[in-house]
Amino acid sequence: MLRVAAPEYPIDTPALIVDAGILLANIRRMAGFFAGRPAKLRPHFKTHKTPAIAHLQLQHGAIGITCAKLGEAEVLVHAGIRDVLIANQVTAPAKVARLAGLAHIAHLKVCVDDEENLLALSRAAVAAGSRIGVLVEVDVGMGRSGTRSAPATLRLAARAASLPGIDFQGVMGYEGHAVFRASREDREAACRAANACLLDHAAAVRQEDIPCPLVSAGGTGTYDISGDCPGITEVEAGSYVFMDATYRKIVPEFATALTALATVISRPEPSRAVIDLGMKAVTGEFGLPQPEGLPGATTLALSEEHGVLELEGPARDLRVGDQVVLLPTHCCTTVNLHDRLHVSRGGRVQDVWTIAARGAFC
Amino acid sequence: MLRVAAPEYPIDTPALIVDAGILLANIRRMAGFFAGRPAKLRPHFKTHKTPAIAHLQLQHGAIGITCAKLGEAEVLVHAGIRDVLIANQVTAPAKVARLAGLAHIAHLKVCVDDEENLLALSRAAVAAGSRIGVLVEVDVGMGRSGTRSAPATLRLAARAASLPGIDFQGVMGYEGHAVFRASREDREAACRAANACLLDHAAAVRQEDIPCPLVSAGGTGTYDISGDCPGITEVEAGSYVFMDATYRKIVPEFATALTALATVISRPEPSRAVIDLGMKAVTGEFGLPQPEGLPGATTLALSEEHGVLELEGPARDLRVGDQVVLLPTHCCTTVNLHDRLHVSRGGRVQDVWTIAARGAFC
Repeated sequence: MLRVAAPEYPIDTPALIVDAGILLANIRRMAGFFAGRPAKLRPHFKTHKTPAIAHLQLQHGAIGITCAKLGEAEVLVHAGIRDVLIANQVTAPAKVARLAGLAHIAHLKVCVDDEENLLALSRAAVAAGSRIGVLVEVDVGMGRSGTRSAPATLRLAARAASLPGIDFQGVMGYEGHAVFRASREDREAACRAANACLLDHAAAVRQEDIPCPLVSAGGTGTYDISGDCPGITEVEAGSYVFMDATYRKIVPEFATALTALATVISRPEPSRAVIDLGMKAVTGEFGLPQPEGLPGATTLALSEEHGVLELEGPARDLRVGDQVVLLPTHCCTTVNLHDRLHVSRGGRVQDVWTIAARGAFC
Repeated sequence: MLRVAAPEYPIDTPALIVDAGILLANIRRMAGFFAGRPAKLRPHFKTHKTPAIAHLQLQHGAIGITCAKLGEAEVLVHAGIRDVLIANQVTAPAKVARLAGLAHIAHLKVCVDDEENLLALSRAAVAAGSRIGVLVEVDVGMGRSGTRSAPATLRLAARAASLPGIDFQGVMGYEGHAVFRASREDREAACRAANACLLDHAAAVRQEDIPCPLVSAGGTGTYDISGDCPGITEVEAGSYVFMDATYRKIVPEFATALTALATVISRPEPSRAVIDLGMKAVTGEFGLPQPEGLPGATTLALSEEHGVLELEGPARDLRVGDQVVLLPTHCCTTVNLHDRLHVSRGGRVQDVWTIAARGAFC
């Protein structure tokens, strides 16, 4: 049977479907990896933005949750999650004040790479009567944010350790330039160099007798390299819960839990189908999402509200109104376009989970 | 002054800013074009998804609103707008029923290119006791949805004209393959060929004594070509209200009303700034959004939550916490990432408009 018949997924499209069994298997597999190791998992919320999934990760051994924005941290804290790392800088004055307020009801940690910002965080925490945990972000080769030298990291760490309202907790560096390298050898080499850099910075801090308990790194593409590196204390992998066509090539030990469901709206030619899934419901920056379980069907193009499929052989049986399953190429940005996840068990959609932090980029 | 100082825009970032004066000037300019012509404007809602703007367009002579999805039509109708064209097929059974229900309280028109779909619309309208307006969608060269021959269009039109619950109203064809052609000559040639094709289909319908009052076409890139073509009765332009870096090259007579505001979160090197605007708040499929009013600054990359700027010369004065204005390259998909528009007058943000149809892709 090529078509995904409507009765199997009686939901409106375009929609995201999460296979609960696969999701849980991915969460358990990652938990299993960290169970026997000194490093722990602090999974990244940016992938799923769904408190229900963050709680599942915590139930399976995660030591806290990582997120990218203060708005995401608010959603997590309001969902009852108390240990949250914002793996990013928070610099606008209004945001710094919000962060200090939120720190009253959660153990918040935020990254810094600028002394003025650190001083502003301290003043806000003192004004609010709260305490903010701080990690110095280190550029480990990605060339984005982060200190560029161990002395710069030490200077910030020493300042953080001395400031009122601030708890200096360690260093963070994301090896984003390494995670997508296709060859395992290349990935390992780039990741080990990044880990060594981060550990050098931590050593410079400790040499001045400043405690540096947290050394935070890693993503899904390097979880087992950074997670196995002595001295790295936690890994921030996110995409392993869902996977996508891009990560499937890198870490095949995790399975695809997230798919997009679309409906055929037009069959203008025997070799052509148009579906109701476009760039407003699935992202294309890592490539076009391709049909799953529909041999002979290939996505040719996405426009805002349409996907165009080329059909060969038996895929030409596809009719207007049929549903098609596609595999996203970037789960994190695709999820951010949706308000809910439709959760299936044994091929049947059973519940709906709210993507509470969809659009929480402020 | 290179920096956009916080007091000028005391709002949280990333955010979208709409200059109300420029928006209104764009709306008036487009209204002025159509004021003296037989063709009328039915502007596309997909660009702004904001009922407040749809009402402004109607106040300035638009004959109704075009949208892409049933979910958008629901937002429009609930906002009091009664003449709505869904320039797309609605095929899933649950959606067809919703459409027939909504048709009780609005003059809804939808496109068809499939006879089974047309029959389903008729059955749903009869069951609901409503009437659904129908236009046959014609492929005028874009290769997406739509009939591929005039006899196919005639067959569907004749069927539509005979079915209970259906009001056949005309034909629609979008020259999406023409709107972005950089050379005016190429654009005119492709657009005129598309218009001729659409008019041929309309003629085939009328030859059988089937009234075909609406011949709907056009986008922002071709509004003055299709809008000046005898026989085209309405134009569906959308992006002219906001404009973006892509359309600015094509139709320079409209001005940029929409910008994205970001905050500098890191200055890791003299030549580098990192801002809090990434792919989750601005889209990149038509190119990277570039800074405005900040000579020497260039966007190098967007990741999910970060933008990386290269700084030369005076742009190096940029500090952590400063705000930066960027020009999106695709206004329609960027707006779809946000829940609100911050509306400025004379450089000051004065009100907030709800993007009520953000994510309304179902």
